[in-house]
Amino acid sequence: MTRLTGLFLSVFIGVYSFSVSAAEWQALPDAAPAPADNPTTPEKVELGRLLYLDPRFSSTGTVSCNSCHNVMLGGEDNRAVSMGVHGQTGGRSAPTVWNSGFSSSQFWDGRAATLEDQAKGPVTNPIEMGMNELEEAMNRVRDIPGYRPYFERAFPGKDPMTVDNAARAVAAYERTLITPDSAYDRYVKGDKQAMSEEQVRGMKSFADAGCTACHSGPAFNGPTMAPGTGFFMKFPTFADSDDVKKYQLADDTGRFTVTGEEADKFMWKVPTLRNITLTAPYFHNGAVGTLDEAVRVMARVQLNKDLSDEQVTDIVAFLSALTGEFPEQPMPRLPATPGRSIIK
Amino acid sequence: MTRLTGLFLSVFIGVYSFSVSAAEWQALPDAAPAPADNPTTPEKVELGRLLYLDPRFSSTGTVSCNSCHNVMLGGEDNRAVSMGVHGQTGGRSAPTVWNSGFSSSQFWDGRAATLEDQAKGPVTNPIEMGMNELEEAMNRVRDIPGYRPYFERAFPGKDPMTVDNAARAVAAYERTLITPDSAYDRYVKGDKQAMSEEQVRGMKSFADAGCTACHSGPAFNGPTMAPGTGFFMKFPTFADSDDVKKYQLADDTGRFTVTGEEADKFMWKVPTLRNITLTAPYFHNGAVGTLDEAVRVMARVQLNKDLSDEQVTDIVAFLSALTGEFPEQPMPRLPATPGRSIIK
Repeated sequence: MTRLTGLFLSVFIGVYSFSVSAAEWQALPDAAPAPADNPTTPEKVELGRLLYLDPRFSSTGTVSCNSCHNVMLGGEDNRAVSMGVHGQTGGRSAPTVWNSGFSSSQFWDGRAATLEDQAKGPVTNPIEMGMNELEEAMNRVRDIPGYRPYFERAFPGKDPMTVDNAARAVAAYERTLITPDSAYDRYVKGDKQAMSEEQVRGMKSFADAGCTACHSGPAFNGPTMAPGTGFFMKFPTFADSDDVKKYQLADDTGRFTVTGEEADKFMWKVPTLRNITLTAPYFHNGAVGTLDEAVRVMARVQLNKDLSDEQVTDIVAFLSALTGEFPEQPMPRLPATPGRSIIK
Repeated sequence: MTRLTGLFLSVFIGVYSFSVSAAEWQALPDAAPAPADNPTTPEKVELGRLLYLDPRFSSTGTVSCNSCHNVMLGGEDNRAVSMGVHGQTGGRSAPTVWNSGFSSSQFWDGRAATLEDQAKGPVTNPIEMGMNELEEAMNRVRDIPGYRPYFERAFPGKDPMTVDNAARAVAAYERTLITPDSAYDRYVKGDKQAMSEEQVRGMKSFADAGCTACHSGPAFNGPTMAPGTGFFMKFPTFADSDDVKKYQLADDTGRFTVTGEEADKFMWKVPTLRNITLTAPYFHNGAVGTLDEAVRVMARVQLNKDLSDEQVTDIVAFLSALTGEFPEQPMPRLPATPGRSIIK
């Protein structure tokens, strides 16, 4: 499957990079698709928001989903690599949670097919939230009396307080974290004043340079695909670029670390470019500090092109048009454990 | 001053513990008092909320005021001692931010006279937010273009982006973090159904046992005093109690660590009991895990009394009546640094 996808993509790029037309620029849908077994409901979203923001399900009680995927910022932490419990860091930069519902796989290497699967990963990662097992985290949730009514409302039926339901709620919440109505969206819907001249020039340069070969679709993370499919591309493609060494771009083999298949070496999920101006530093290892430089490096290592200063400026301006409207949300009260703490 | 206060208090306790009457039970005011040079305004509150929630002013970009004083919880972190940058911990438990505007000094040892002073402390504490100096943190604020309009609105005039103004804004926000309308407040305002029978019994036991000698006033942190005065009491008073060793209650000399004066040994700011059920574990070192045990220990080490199980149950029920209404607040968008990060 993966190998076929890779093969398909090689062909796909060849065709696609020469065929970007106005019709292919897509606005962000108003809602992220949900799997059939987890329709998004207000009750799940409300519960999911609590779980997402609650730091008590990490070993130290200090790290929540929001710690590394901060919804008050660009959906991540503006760090090269995130910092989990006890100040530990890993090798990859936190992807943004904003519009993650439009991705057909999760994590940089696509090792989770859905947001539901993804939500379970960091909890037991020893350098992220550091719990020993998911049931240990779930026992903390169960130990907070105020969570029960939220679970009962979100998942009517017997024994609603399960790991799977907690993950479903978090995923449902994340599917509401979408940012429509960017200048770009208004532009492609017909408001030709929505983007500046510079941004319009940048949009053309972006397509002409070939960026849309991978960064296509409404979220600029590839075409809309079935959940679990994953849209992967090789990075770096031009591995002898000086940038590869300078920014250690080939130190991590990407999807190969998950599948062990040769064809997956240096294959990476194509990340969304929505709100990309908010999520510096850039790339899977966070090694590139600025968006200007990220655009230059991408052109060199993926397209073997040296962009002019003007092209870079225009493309960066265009990318800033992908910053959307962030939905207002309340700051919730997290349920209490009266008279005691569940953090040891 | 401190010595006089201590002397005064010794006399004060003798008189006061026999004189608690209905007239002395005070409801929480609707607003926290603000210093003359920093009146609370909506513009300052809005800015202060942003600064309070923004983790980018810590060395790692991971620790905000809210990390240890979580406004979605009981205003702290439910940890014995908080965890700052690089997973470091200190020796004292984070006090709640809720109703801190009703305290006449700040920190457990009262080393800050006002919330404005307090706000500057953790930023440069190497085990808390870990910045080298306040100006370094302020330069990060200045480096985020979107903060400027907030400062200009909150502090009209020349050069509004100063450390002092940032601290003023945070303090102004904190003064809005008050929790009126608890069952207790409604009870003392005349609604005799607001508290359960158990809570009413507990209220009497609380006064009869002598808790009100220190935990008096609208916030149960002592009488209303001028800002900077501080209401300090000796803890532990009965130092040969087994609890003192068991919970290491005399390992920290409290206010003596600030003043170096013998009379300040083991003197501590009397903490508020508002929302106390939400802030386990207890005491300055967070060594006591449950509120039940905290009530027993306080009676033994401060009043030399062994409370009965029923008294403890009643008092804990009464203390739960001190949990108030938490004001609704929006989850803000933190201003961005387009195309780059200020976290190194």
